[in-house]
Amino acid sequence: MILEKINKPNDIKNIDSCEYQKLASEIRQFLIEKISKSGGHLASNLGVVELTMALHIAFNLPEDKLIWDVGHQSYTHKILTGRKEKFDQLRKFGGMSGFPKRNESDYDAFDTGHSSTSISAGLGYAYSRQIKGGNNSIISVIGDGALTGGMAYEALNNASRIKGNFIIVLNDNNMSISENVGGVSKMLEDVRTSQSYYDLKEGVSNTLSKLPKGDLLVSKIKKTKANIKQFLVPKQIFEDMGITYLGPIDGHDIMKLIKVFKVAKRIDHAVIIHVITEKGRGYIPAEKNPSLFHGIGPFNIKTGKPLVTGSSLSYTQVFSNKLCSLATADKKIVGITAAMPDGTGLSKFKKNFPERFFDVGIAEAHAVTFAAGLAADGLIPVFGVYSSFLQRAFDQVLHDVCIQQLHVVFAIDRAGLVGSDGETHQGIFDLSFLSIIPNMTIFAPKNAWELGVAIEYAVEDFYGPIAIRYPRGEAYTGFEDNKEPILYGKSEIIIWEKDIALMAVGNMMITAEIVRDTLKDMGYNVTLINARFIKPIDTELIDKIVDTHSLLITLEENVFIGGFGERVCCYVSNNNYKIKTLNISLPDDYIEHGSVDILKRETGIDSTTIVNKIISTYREIEGL
Amino acid sequence: MILEKINKPNDIKNIDSCEYQKLASEIRQFLIEKISKSGGHLASNLGVVELTMALHIAFNLPEDKLIWDVGHQSYTHKILTGRKEKFDQLRKFGGMSGFPKRNESDYDAFDTGHSSTSISAGLGYAYSRQIKGGNNSIISVIGDGALTGGMAYEALNNASRIKGNFIIVLNDNNMSISENVGGVSKMLEDVRTSQSYYDLKEGVSNTLSKLPKGDLLVSKIKKTKANIKQFLVPKQIFEDMGITYLGPIDGHDIMKLIKVFKVAKRIDHAVIIHVITEKGRGYIPAEKNPSLFHGIGPFNIKTGKPLVTGSSLSYTQVFSNKLCSLATADKKIVGITAAMPDGTGLSKFKKNFPERFFDVGIAEAHAVTFAAGLAADGLIPVFGVYSSFLQRAFDQVLHDVCIQQLHVVFAIDRAGLVGSDGETHQGIFDLSFLSIIPNMTIFAPKNAWELGVAIEYAVEDFYGPIAIRYPRGEAYTGFEDNKEPILYGKSEIIIWEKDIALMAVGNMMITAEIVRDTLKDMGYNVTLINARFIKPIDTELIDKIVDTHSLLITLEENVFIGGFGERVCCYVSNNNYKIKTLNISLPDDYIEHGSVDILKRETGIDSTTIVNKIISTYREIEGL
Repeated sequence: MILEKINKPNDIKNIDSCEYQKLASEIRQFLIEKISKSGGHLASNLGVVELTMALHIAFNLPEDKLIWDVGHQSYTHKILTGRKEKFDQLRKFGGMSGFPKRNESDYDAFDTGHSSTSISAGLGYAYSRQIKGGNNSIISVIGDGALTGGMAYEALNNASRIKGNFIIVLNDNNMSISENVGGVSKMLEDVRTSQSYYDLKEGVSNTLSKLPKGDLLVSKIKKTKANIKQFLVPKQIFEDMGITYLGPIDGHDIMKLIKVFKVAKRIDHAVIIHVITEKGRGYIPAEKNPSLFHGIGPFNIKTGKPLVTGSSLSYTQVFSNKLCSLATADKKIVGITAAMPDGTGLSKFKKNFPERFFDVGIAEAHAVTFAAGLAADGLIPVFGVYSSFLQRAFDQVLHDVCIQQLHVVFAIDRAGLVGSDGETHQGIFDLSFLSIIPNMTIFAPKNAWELGVAIEYAVEDFYGPIAIRYPRGEAYTGFEDNKEPILYGKSEIIIWEKDIALMAVGNMMITAEIVRDTLKDMGYNVTLINARFIKPIDTELIDKIVDTHSLLITLEENVFIGGFGERVCCYVSNNNYKIKTLNISLPDDYIEHGSVDILKRETGIDSTTIVNKIISTYREIEGL
Repeated sequence: MILEKINKPNDIKNIDSCEYQKLASEIRQFLIEKISKSGGHLASNLGVVELTMALHIAFNLPEDKLIWDVGHQSYTHKILTGRKEKFDQLRKFGGMSGFPKRNESDYDAFDTGHSSTSISAGLGYAYSRQIKGGNNSIISVIGDGALTGGMAYEALNNASRIKGNFIIVLNDNNMSISENVGGVSKMLEDVRTSQSYYDLKEGVSNTLSKLPKGDLLVSKIKKTKANIKQFLVPKQIFEDMGITYLGPIDGHDIMKLIKVFKVAKRIDHAVIIHVITEKGRGYIPAEKNPSLFHGIGPFNIKTGKPLVTGSSLSYTQVFSNKLCSLATADKKIVGITAAMPDGTGLSKFKKNFPERFFDVGIAEAHAVTFAAGLAADGLIPVFGVYSSFLQRAFDQVLHDVCIQQLHVVFAIDRAGLVGSDGETHQGIFDLSFLSIIPNMTIFAPKNAWELGVAIEYAVEDFYGPIAIRYPRGEAYTGFEDNKEPILYGKSEIIIWEKDIALMAVGNMMITAEIVRDTLKDMGYNVTLINARFIKPIDTELIDKIVDTHSLLITLEENVFIGGFGERVCCYVSNNNYKIKTLNISLPDDYIEHGSVDILKRETGIDSTTIVNKIISTYREIEGL
């Protein structure tokens, strides 16, 4: 085992080059085995094994700064920087993150999680070097999918101006999470599939490697490269912008990659190295279905089948099915995703209504304003999006949709705690950032049935901007007797008693019911309310609650600041109501990775902690 | 006067073509005269007079949809659509907006205000037409400055896929508000300045106009155009992406513009028409200094000098001077702007420290993550940005800066009500959207002196993400005796009495002082607190206030939801304090254009309204 020799950072520099290929195989095997047990991002990591090895061999980390875009492809990087043993605790609470983290290793130059940020961050490092003096290398690795995000283009536009070496590695696997889209993708595709690439790819690296050593090198590169490019890459956005282009390079040929990196280091401005990799490489099921193996739970290595398959429907599926059934009857419904047709459940919509389906790439800002345009012309766009990714389009929701009060439906998946992806993927800010926005309506369903009726309500019975917010995972099927029709701004009363009132948002209804049952068993009188609307809040019901209750508890899977609880609390206070309020919500902090159950316990929103808090608060009020 | 014949929409279609040039001159004269009195956006509007006329002649509005990017250049469009008489009330409360508004005219297809949205919105209309059936034209007009915004690129990337006509007019004046930056700008510059453009620009339109009429046209265009392009435009980002490129065209030649538009209409996919215009054209002072005449107050037509010149410093200047003085001593300080060196006051920094100054283009998302990269390497980036534009980088502040707790200083100008630019430019959401973010610190100074010390505090005495938020206009010089040093999280006590406590944020201290003086004259005891920190709030001081006061009033120029008042109120409520709270803030709504004084009165945050509210609330508490 070569992998046994890799224990601390830069150990790879002591490996003989004839063993590189074997090490790559061992790393792949290691990744497949570990991820088959822990779950995680597989396909993208299998694609960049050689690329990562070559980067670590060609550069001097941590003096040189290596910045991964998104960062879910950093597993080999973690193996090569002394974190091999931590893979048993990958993405587990207290264990190693699935993303680069500066507080985990000096070799992680920048925390990432969302797409298209690496060139911006890398430029920060590169200009800092220019200001402070220094000659280390800065390398930003970015996928072709991330190039569909406008921020990457903003950064490229600025990268063209730097007077000093700055290396962008374009990891091109013709995929984001799903299939790629748009003009840039088409352009890269042209390069990839042109016969000349396959005929001449040998030639590229050979030519580059034959370049003379020494000071003349840099000046000669441009000429030589231009010659290569002439027959290889007929049209290039990058050189139009003033960034030197090298490639395409076979991303699985370590020796060639190392040589290109050494050449790139000596260029005195921004250079982009176009590397072609295969997502899922080395594991047949992942090669065949890289989208499925993008992020996956534990699976059987032999068959590639997931070990746990939910027998009941996920919220995503409930949304997907409902939207498709509505869209059959209503031709005005349009489905939009930002590179997430599978994750958001819109792939079914895509299949059934291809002419009304739009995958815009990793481009949330565009997606929202595009939806606004569709709505301005009378259609009903439904944007299926993860909570944390909608953060990218805050201004577009605020301005382009809500000022004009356009009928755009935001189907917000992965709202609340999502678990193992950690800080950058928790959907715990949406109730706050959406509530700020005038004209916005926000709804959270308590179970599968209610998500269905909420989607129907939002699409067919409502006019204006509306967000339906639901969590990751299995759709709850409890509360089967509670099927109150949706009325604008009205909560649903599940049980009406007195003394203590629980008012819960969406998913937290499950916890609230447990809390209520426990309190009831202990002899307390407890009202249970399904909030439904987070904006507007049901003030009429609150007015009624205060008459017969002395403690009002709000429950939400969202940060406290700006959330549902704060608004209810403030309403109560401004009306001088004497009822005591208690807000159960997440702290003013980022929540790391871990299972949702553990995270709930750690943040104090599990039923046991809540029951204790309620009892002590209630005793205080009653003077017990 | 030809202009007298322009009274309702499409009147221009009855004007003889030989009178176009005269009409253009009259429109220019009209704009100069009106804006010299009302203030407004001048230079950009003078640049597009012929372009707008040609669009109205060549297309059939409102069936055809015309979408202006940003929209501040839509004045001629307003003249041509029956709104000439409304220019006396331009940007005044209740009068005509300076931006397109769907609720103002059917000819305004989409509300705009922030940059780089027009292609996204236009694509919405174009795909809606495709879904519903129809053959109207969709035209998105976008400036070359707006092309530095990533959202425009996300949209272009999607535009390349549309199977139907979609027209993008690139209004290229080599300026955003200030000088343009980056690779794309350089590329356009190459086109503009190439000898071939000037030699051959006559040829382009001639060639296009000689194209045969009839069904064969469309198929022939590609070939002809390719020939023209060959010697005119050697490198084009647009065709690389699959979008047909026509141009460059002289944007002041109406007949040629009309011809090109007619050609463009017949292309069965996305087409970009590159139009070269001159910002400020026809008014010498604006031609010479288009940046000054971008947005301007009333001015003397003869001299081009502003009629009102503030004798004292603006907050912008205070920030600018302070930052420059700090940066002389501390070489780690870096200044960043997103295309606003003048507006943010950073142009002085640019002049003094060119190697540490970065104008990244209209690219707020990139700006923030770029700043994060600089900070990760130990520098101290200060991002000077308008409040409403920072909305564009919400996710980047939340993730790239605040998770890593990086020392990035946000100098937030134009916070609170800004007046005549209306809905899209009011800085009334920042306290809310920034407060949501963990690890963020938010400070608002009460006067010029305090902005200076706050900038010094943020840059030199603090480590972590921090926002200093200050309003548009003259820096207040009152409170000259109140110079308490800044302590983290601590408010400043101006006057300590009992009964009623006023706790005001930043600029609202001026109003609070008037309110206090009035109440004092009426015999009330009133404490006056300068909140200073919006996050964290000074809970220790609130704990003290409740002991000796029965009414606590918060005052802020921010929406109520998620703002300072809501948080204070909630703190009071959760601690079961018996003090009554009253929140003076802006409603959960967009605030239209108008003078700040009028807007304050309309929204109930003027001193008279506040005094009345306080008295009635206090009487209620005291049972009077």
